Amino acid sequence: MRDNCSDMNHNLQIYNSLVREKVPFEPLNPPFVGLYVCGPTVYSDAHLGHARPAITFDLLFRYLTHLGYKVRYVRNITDVGHLENDADEGDDKIQKKAKLENLEPMEVVQKYMATFHRNMDQLNTLPPSIEPRASGHIIEQQELIKKIIDQGYGYEVNGSVYFDVNKYNKKYDYGKLSGRVLEELIACTRTLEGQEEKKNSCDFALWKKASPEHLMKWPSPWSEGFPGWHLECSAMSIKYLGEVFDIHGGGMDLKFPHHECEIAQSTAALGKESVRYWMHNNMITINGQKMARSLGNFITLDQLFSGEHELLEQPYNPMTIRFFILQAHYRSTMDFSNEALQAAEKGAQKLMKAVETIDKLKPSSKSSIDIKALKKKCYEAMDDDLNTPVLLSHLFEGVRCINSVADGCETVTEADINELRTLFNDFVFGIMGLQKESSQEIGEELTSRLMEIIIGLRQDAKERKEWAVSDKIRDKLEKVGVTLKDTKEGTVWEVGL
Amino acid sequence: MRDNCSDMNHNLQIYNSLVREKVPFEPLNPPFVGLYVCGPTVYSDAHLGHARPAITFDLLFRYLTHLGYKVRYVRNITDVGHLENDADEGDDKIQKKAKLENLEPMEVVQKYMATFHRNMDQLNTLPPSIEPRASGHIIEQQELIKKIIDQGYGYEVNGSVYFDVNKYNKKYDYGKLSGRVLEELIACTRTLEGQEEKKNSCDFALWKKASPEHLMKWPSPWSEGFPGWHLECSAMSIKYLGEVFDIHGGGMDLKFPHHECEIAQSTAALGKESVRYWMHNNMITINGQKMARSLGNFITLDQLFSGEHELLEQPYNPMTIRFFILQAHYRSTMDFSNEALQAAEKGAQKLMKAVETIDKLKPSSKSSIDIKALKKKCYEAMDDDLNTPVLLSHLFEGVRCINSVADGCETVTEADINELRTLFNDFVFGIMGLQKESSQEIGEELTSRLMEIIIGLRQDAKERKEWAVSDKIRDKLEKVGVTLKDTKEGTVWEVGL
Repeated sequence: MRDNCSDMNHNLQIYNSLVREKVPFEPLNPPFVGLYVCGPTVYSDAHLGHARPAITFDLLFRYLTHLGYKVRYVRNITDVGHLENDADEGDDKIQKKAKLENLEPMEVVQKYMATFHRNMDQLNTLPPSIEPRASGHIIEQQELIKKIIDQGYGYEVNGSVYFDVNKYNKKYDYGKLSGRVLEELIACTRTLEGQEEKKNSCDFALWKKASPEHLMKWPSPWSEGFPGWHLECSAMSIKYLGEVFDIHGGGMDLKFPHHECEIAQSTAALGKESVRYWMHNNMITINGQKMARSLGNFITLDQLFSGEHELLEQPYNPMTIRFFILQAHYRSTMDFSNEALQAAEKGAQKLMKAVETIDKLKPSSKSSIDIKALKKKCYEAMDDDLNTPVLLSHLFEGVRCINSVADGCETVTEADINELRTLFNDFVFGIMGLQKESSQEIGEELTSRLMEIIIGLRQDAKERKEWAVSDKIRDKLEKVGVTLKDTKEGTVWEVGL
Repeated sequence: MRDNCSDMNHNLQIYNSLVREKVPFEPLNPPFVGLYVCGPTVYSDAHLGHARPAITFDLLFRYLTHLGYKVRYVRNITDVGHLENDADEGDDKIQKKAKLENLEPMEVVQKYMATFHRNMDQLNTLPPSIEPRASGHIIEQQELIKKIIDQGYGYEVNGSVYFDVNKYNKKYDYGKLSGRVLEELIACTRTLEGQEEKKNSCDFALWKKASPEHLMKWPSPWSEGFPGWHLECSAMSIKYLGEVFDIHGGGMDLKFPHHECEIAQSTAALGKESVRYWMHNNMITINGQKMARSLGNFITLDQLFSGEHELLEQPYNPMTIRFFILQAHYRSTMDFSNEALQAAEKGAQKLMKAVETIDKLKPSSKSSIDIKALKKKCYEAMDDDLNTPVLLSHLFEGVRCINSVADGCETVTEADINELRTLFNDFVFGIMGLQKESSQEIGEELTSRLMEIIIGLRQDAKERKEWAVSDKIRDKLEKVGVTLKDTKEGTVWEVGL
């Protein structure tokens, strides 16, 4: 946290999906901020679609912390109850995968949760403060169901409990977040098989009675069964952040039905809304198409990082992905393509190079550029609903200044060099969460440079016809496992086994 | 899994703590093996004491898998209910830490669970198949309490439920694992404050009513409260491995009361014992003393890896720690000291160097050494209750053979070279889980070697008085960020910022 910025008197505006406009962010109990974000259902490898919400809300977490807030960031793991379709029917996604892979459902959870965490580390997202699992909060979910029933908005049929959307909508407003109108929803909903228990096709399950072959089930006052998918987020956000908390985030695709149902559940149980600000990130398309397994354009993060997918021209560093995502505003759509990622790769490199250049600048007695004005613009961009594309344009203005100073066309004082260093450290690393190349990559880079020097020296010796020297260099390299090959294009080298 | 060894017809003997002797290992439902190991209570950084059980049971997991068994390895995370003393009184360890750090208990859990996982990765222990958390299995624990009460071995007092050890001991044998005798236990136990509810000082809590200020509590038929510490392992092992399963592991310090109580709980609830083989690793002492925070000899794994502890003369690579632990049999005590770790470091390096040498051996038409006999002895060592010190002595016999062949004193055929390679790969990497230096460390090594070559070339140029060449080398290095310093002891180099 920066000293000169820890007063939280920034005019941070965020777009609240509930009121559909940018509003000042005023936490309920400053300096504390409660932030809940919908995490993954861990039944398959993390993919490009997981990267965007993770990075968006990591950016928010980092910026709020930078401003001096004490943020409790809760992101759940859905490990039970997420059925294949939103109509409360079909297999549980995890149980289905468990059958396919011949594993216990919790083995599936363990496997894909580990992959998710590894990928999130690679993308340099900070771990949430608490990462509750749905299966670990069955009692809390049952208690919430009891409250909803007590308030008259839940009904039991054959051991399952449903939420009475029609009744809720008479007092409250079902559809207020997503803009859907209940009457239209009802008119458009086909009655699916297995829906007969519901009073209304729009009702959703709070508790489902399990069939005998269902593996993940628990005793309850209604049946051996499992909670509905929407319930976990209401129960766990209230448990860890209180009945009313500041921000709930997630992907735009979760607005309906997931978040709409969350609002209904919490409001029905508590008589008030839990969430003060709803924030939603937009989606990523791939070459203009929606990402879907059926379209063959489904790219996992491991594939992105390794380049092993037919749509990928090369591997992409996790920091390239991060930079790419931050180049767009989180509420804009963004299209993935090799060109776009290669441009992001170059942009990130240019930014990192400028950060290194700061340390090499020679101070002058006067500054010809205005660092304070630049800094002000950077904060204004972030305060404007986390506008990272504008932030980046200001930082690249800074990059041009840094390069101009390095070239001698502009001047900066010692104090302004320090100011620049802090500015770039704060925004590039602290807030945007970008990272320098790892020490391994730096090492590989250094090895290449040293090899260029050695090959150059050997070339010099050859030109001077000092054959003993050039042979000696070759032999010494052989001893440390490096083989030289003289080709038409020059000398190349490789490290042996 | 190795083809020529996948028949599981090995005569694997393991020491079953319950019968106090080595017995043949015969799983209940081959090829499946159920393995449950007590994991950490996540309220502080992982330390040396966590490394030994983690590596011991990782070794078992790897060897069983190598033999062709399909192992479901469950290791729990204790995130609630572990009180400060074994007499069911005192603060919950996690809640106490939460107060100290001004965090929500689950924030404490998240923080130290992440550290534990990172450290386990560094030690190259494979993740368990399932990693259940106590707080995520409250219903399962409550169901088990109901069964114990139904069978007459649990009683409720003021909202808490206790296990009736005296009654249990009339039908079964309380103390059979630890060798304790109930009458002596009762005679020796002081009646502690807050123990008044118990019929007998040896009784232990299954459910504790929570005080109003207690944070981690759940509704139950008896009170708002939390489960006793011993209960989670009984409930979660039965849930994920079945009522009767093969192996239960843990540190020797857990034999009493933890594992004794587990046996009592499962036996009381099910009328039969759950665990077929109990395995216990011995403890690590530090310079002859028990490790304890109060003695100032408490070393965390992060401190070991970084060298930042007053007792440490240097940082130790995680693979040095792993090798050190495998040098002793898991049931032997072992004493930690800088000398012992430095010896382990050398031993591990020698072993790794020999593995690399295998690839450089020149095949002969005849073998003068008997690889098959060596292989047989390696399996025999592992089959003898995972006797890694004996295994290592055989592998070092192999190391001598490899070096003798490299020196031309012994010969091996092409087929035997392949046999040797498989043997070392299987035992060193697959079963013992040691790792070669990381590519980063290899890169650093290569950089040093290349710098030696460049410095040598510059020295040659100086000796030939080719000052232009030696200056050019210095300049070229400067450009890639490497600075040379000529000192009395010769030229040293460093990488700049």
